[in-house]
Amino acid sequence: MAETNLQILLRRRPQGAPVPEDFEIVETPVPEPAEGEVLVRARWLSLDPYMRGRMSDAKSYAKPVEIGAVMEGQTAGEVVASRAPGFAPGDTVLGGYGWQRFSCVQPARLFRIDPQEAPLSASLGVLGMPGLTAWVGLEDIGQPKAGETMVVSAASGAVGQVVGQIGKIRGCKVVGIAGGRKKCDFVTGELGFDACLDHHEDLDAQLDKACPEGIDVYWENVGGPVQAAVFPRLNDFGRMVMCGMIAQYNIAPGADASGAPPGPNLGPVVRKRLRIQGFIVSDTGWPRYPEFRRQMLGWLREGRVRWREDVVEGLRNAPDAFIGLLQGRNFGKLVVKVD
Amino acid sequence: MAETNLQILLRRRPQGAPVPEDFEIVETPVPEPAEGEVLVRARWLSLDPYMRGRMSDAKSYAKPVEIGAVMEGQTAGEVVASRAPGFAPGDTVLGGYGWQRFSCVQPARLFRIDPQEAPLSASLGVLGMPGLTAWVGLEDIGQPKAGETMVVSAASGAVGQVVGQIGKIRGCKVVGIAGGRKKCDFVTGELGFDACLDHHEDLDAQLDKACPEGIDVYWENVGGPVQAAVFPRLNDFGRMVMCGMIAQYNIAPGADASGAPPGPNLGPVVRKRLRIQGFIVSDTGWPRYPEFRRQMLGWLREGRVRWREDVVEGLRNAPDAFIGLLQGRNFGKLVVKVD
Repeated sequence: MAETNLQILLRRRPQGAPVPEDFEIVETPVPEPAEGEVLVRARWLSLDPYMRGRMSDAKSYAKPVEIGAVMEGQTAGEVVASRAPGFAPGDTVLGGYGWQRFSCVQPARLFRIDPQEAPLSASLGVLGMPGLTAWVGLEDIGQPKAGETMVVSAASGAVGQVVGQIGKIRGCKVVGIAGGRKKCDFVTGELGFDACLDHHEDLDAQLDKACPEGIDVYWENVGGPVQAAVFPRLNDFGRMVMCGMIAQYNIAPGADASGAPPGPNLGPVVRKRLRIQGFIVSDTGWPRYPEFRRQMLGWLREGRVRWREDVVEGLRNAPDAFIGLLQGRNFGKLVVKVD
Repeated sequence: MAETNLQILLRRRPQGAPVPEDFEIVETPVPEPAEGEVLVRARWLSLDPYMRGRMSDAKSYAKPVEIGAVMEGQTAGEVVASRAPGFAPGDTVLGGYGWQRFSCVQPARLFRIDPQEAPLSASLGVLGMPGLTAWVGLEDIGQPKAGETMVVSAASGAVGQVVGQIGKIRGCKVVGIAGGRKKCDFVTGELGFDACLDHHEDLDAQLDKACPEGIDVYWENVGGPVQAAVFPRLNDFGRMVMCGMIAQYNIAPGADASGAPPGPNLGPVVRKRLRIQGFIVSDTGWPRYPEFRRQMLGWLREGRVRWREDVVEGLRNAPDAFIGLLQGRNFGKLVVKVD
């Protein structure tokens, strides 16, 4: 049976929250790699919040996906054909491209990985871009020190899971924030955070109780009311690692102000010598991927870092799963098993 | 004639903007230095915005001045008597203490200075704490690079003057913001900034015109509507050096939120990888003072840095001058000639 390429295209730009009609599912011939390219068969597709930005044509740090083009995303899979030196059929690779079964990619960002080291899907999560994001943001901005208090929003998500566990390895008291009792129980019970607060309940009261000595490092994944509750509790020399603000991605995608709620008055930034800094992992992260992977594999082997995935079966279900991701419906790193 | 000590005390904590009745002027005997202390006769007193914070008992980075105590401030003058090694009567020193004619001080923060190097009052401005503030904030946070655009608020003030001129030395395009045509003319004509915008006029339109390529470094001295106009114009990897927010010192002195207006939505901090960082010069500045002074004296000799002072005659006029400082009434570094 001749295989076909299954692709998910951006049909139109969403108005607010994406809906299924914003996507189009097509079957096309398997592409032929050009000279210098590698043909990759995806086994796993990563779904991540940043993709909401790519669906919008608002000015951002990366080009938007064009209407009618394949949705952007990273996959893990195997090499089917190679016209590039250093890659051969059967190689297991991280870095295939897009919401599709087959992709032709340049080898520059393709990492050959050892499938014995960890389950392949982990290279899209704890060992992939989300894990690298956590590691880079803490190395460069958060700089947690033993004895400090770290608060992590979206604590059960792909990045938050890793942030908090690195915080524990660094000797911090780590307090997660997540949506609902089930996620909070996982964060404390399975991931070993010291506490996890449910943002559906009174966050001020919970933070008062969980962080009586204030907050030294805040990992920002969400924005909105969670940010408003955390900000006044930052200690002198506190750091806010600005990784994302998913709470407003559907309000003002990439825009500066239109519809976005105001933020905190910045007076305390002077008085407390706060550092509020944003970063995008692709700026400086990938050249450091081998170093990160080596360290993280060590932590996984030692049982010091665990992870949870939310597996979606079948590429056709990716749009619905992605819509759910923006609503917090997933529980753990969201990955699609590509059929 | 036996001299007396003239002192200005904090009589009560201001409600909002300070008024003359918040201060008390007293004459007392000249104090006797204890063992290990130096008696300094002030010739110049520095008046600076941070003093508003010390009048309040809201939580801050430094202890408030107690009711009935001498107002905090730095002076330059000469040693009258010394019971500390390394200082002798007649030495010219920076680091005397308080709104008073005579003070007994520990030698740890007293700098002996050469009165031939520059006029003594300059050691309270361009060669003193405000100059050091500019230098440290740019070294540690602003990190201006040649070809970048720097915007400086309160550009004709003690710190702003120096910030912009260092920016020019570093090869930046420097745009000041000040209140009124007279100050703006001084900033461009005397200090050599590329442009200076009057915040009483339409700042958005002026910024569009003066900074067509966006803003890479913003030196924040004021907050409020100036901050709101600058923030959306920050470029990718822009830095906000948070030195002060004088526009709200009388609204919410030191407080986190009470009465303070909201700030910008922080979504762009992620997308643009902004760094917003506050600092207080006394944290790390003074050990670097000799290095700073050496470099700044070189710039002064070469005519690359100029400065302007607003001189108030007589210590009894300090309260009124300070009240004016918080209203932007001064024009240049505000210093009191101590009689």
